[in-house]
Amino acid sequence: MRVVETIAECRKELSKLRQFGGRTGFVPTMGALHAGHVSLMEICRRQVEISVASIFVNPTQFAPTEDLSRYPRPLEHDLELCRASGVDLVFVPTVAEMYPPLAQTNVSVSTLTTLWEGQLRPTHFQGVTTVVTKLFNIVQPQFAFFGQKDYQQQAILRRMVQDLDQPVRIRTCSTIRESDGLAMSSRNAYLTSEQRSQATQIYRGLAKSESLWQAGDRSPAALEHAIKTTIAEVPALDIDYVAIVDPETLKLLDTIDTGAVALVACRLGTTRLIDNLLLGNARQIVESD
Amino acid sequence: MRVVETIAECRKELSKLRQFGGRTGFVPTMGALHAGHVSLMEICRRQVEISVASIFVNPTQFAPTEDLSRYPRPLEHDLELCRASGVDLVFVPTVAEMYPPLAQTNVSVSTLTTLWEGQLRPTHFQGVTTVVTKLFNIVQPQFAFFGQKDYQQQAILRRMVQDLDQPVRIRTCSTIRESDGLAMSSRNAYLTSEQRSQATQIYRGLAKSESLWQAGDRSPAALEHAIKTTIAEVPALDIDYVAIVDPETLKLLDTIDTGAVALVACRLGTTRLIDNLLLGNARQIVESD
Repeated sequence: MRVVETIAECRKELSKLRQFGGRTGFVPTMGALHAGHVSLMEICRRQVEISVASIFVNPTQFAPTEDLSRYPRPLEHDLELCRASGVDLVFVPTVAEMYPPLAQTNVSVSTLTTLWEGQLRPTHFQGVTTVVTKLFNIVQPQFAFFGQKDYQQQAILRRMVQDLDQPVRIRTCSTIRESDGLAMSSRNAYLTSEQRSQATQIYRGLAKSESLWQAGDRSPAALEHAIKTTIAEVPALDIDYVAIVDPETLKLLDTIDTGAVALVACRLGTTRLIDNLLLGNARQIVESD
Repeated sequence: MRVVETIAECRKELSKLRQFGGRTGFVPTMGALHAGHVSLMEICRRQVEISVASIFVNPTQFAPTEDLSRYPRPLEHDLELCRASGVDLVFVPTVAEMYPPLAQTNVSVSTLTTLWEGQLRPTHFQGVTTVVTKLFNIVQPQFAFFGQKDYQQQAILRRMVQDLDQPVRIRTCSTIRESDGLAMSSRNAYLTSEQRSQATQIYRGLAKSESLWQAGDRSPAALEHAIKTTIAEVPALDIDYVAIVDPETLKLLDTIDTGAVALVACRLGTTRLIDNLLLGNARQIVESD
């Protein structure tokens, strides 16, 4: 496995890796890798000949009030996980390499980024779409792998790829969970052991909506209510939103036709946690590429 | 020469053309081709193995008050010129093909687009950067050719390519002029014969600044004054701006170090005309890729 820090080196290594052909898969990350990232890298490795990961804590997707400076950066451990997952090349650029002094170009998605996470983090997604476009242009993968856990992010990136005709396919991979159901997240590291146990209630809420769905309930209001009341059983969890939305537009649904996504965001102390569940044929939408 | 209307066909034809290797050059146009475009296509053909042109009157770079509906669209003649220039593939998409109903992603360059043409056409350059990014992603050229006549456009596109790490090099080609000096432009077709003759005064103004420069004058104020007073000799020419600017940032210069660009925009009746002149080492900057 090669580790490179500059765009020029990254391109040079890629052209070496590609000299005998093969498709490239790409897993962009902010490091602090966990089993969710490992799953993405392993899926990538199984689907393509050349696997590339990036580790870059992108400053433009953090608001000034957010956790940029305390975001975990365990680089050596991250690189070990990349190596163990069979990645061929890891791109670990500096901020100066990615954002030279005169940089002034942004990629932005409009409607989708104003909803849900965008309401609470108004500049976040422009940071994501811009850096992911840059990384796609540097790595030029045929496939890129993202976690379903950041549901809105993958929906926005799918929209971006389609709107800009970027020659890459987005593959959204199932959320990896702890044995008690908590969705894997680098931010789980911020939780105290008491909070860690309280956080599992989010998945219990989502599981309740799954049970209702299995029993035939198709009312968005009923599903939303079940999630909210379940989460409310743990008063430490402060709900930002619970919403039953269209899998593609992320708009609130009055009625469910064939599929929906349940989105949840909570605060637990100073940590924000998000999770989601696919209902009905929503899985087909995130699996379409 | 193949002519295709859909993105899928364009990609399919490109992969055929590339099956035995070779670099791709690209000339994006809005049609209404003239000798300036022909020059771009011929330079492209000489520099690469596979030459692609596009013809697309991009609605998002016209303001509601502008000339979208009356913009000339002589498709058959345009295709003849492409064929005669040795182009291998022409992409002629419809508006619906380029902007499907849910499209909501834009590429924008900030500071550079607020200056000069951006002052008078505030949404213009976002339309340009977004459509050029889409076309680059569809055609995936190694080189793209633009005319120096749209100086600010090529400066913005160079910034965009660098900021987003797009894997393409911008080549800016000299402005092609009529024998009396008027810069070739599709919008020259709007001029009456009287206006056509008045319009040549713009180049006379630029030529005056060139003479001053050759004589050793390095004062931006003096160069600007010479252009303005020369153009003012034809009262029908209504000056929007005359500016001596930095070749890369397009900011006004107080003093000229080694190079500058003289930018001019005028209105003549209902037609806007722009032109420019490179002074000193500015040529090296537009030729760097």
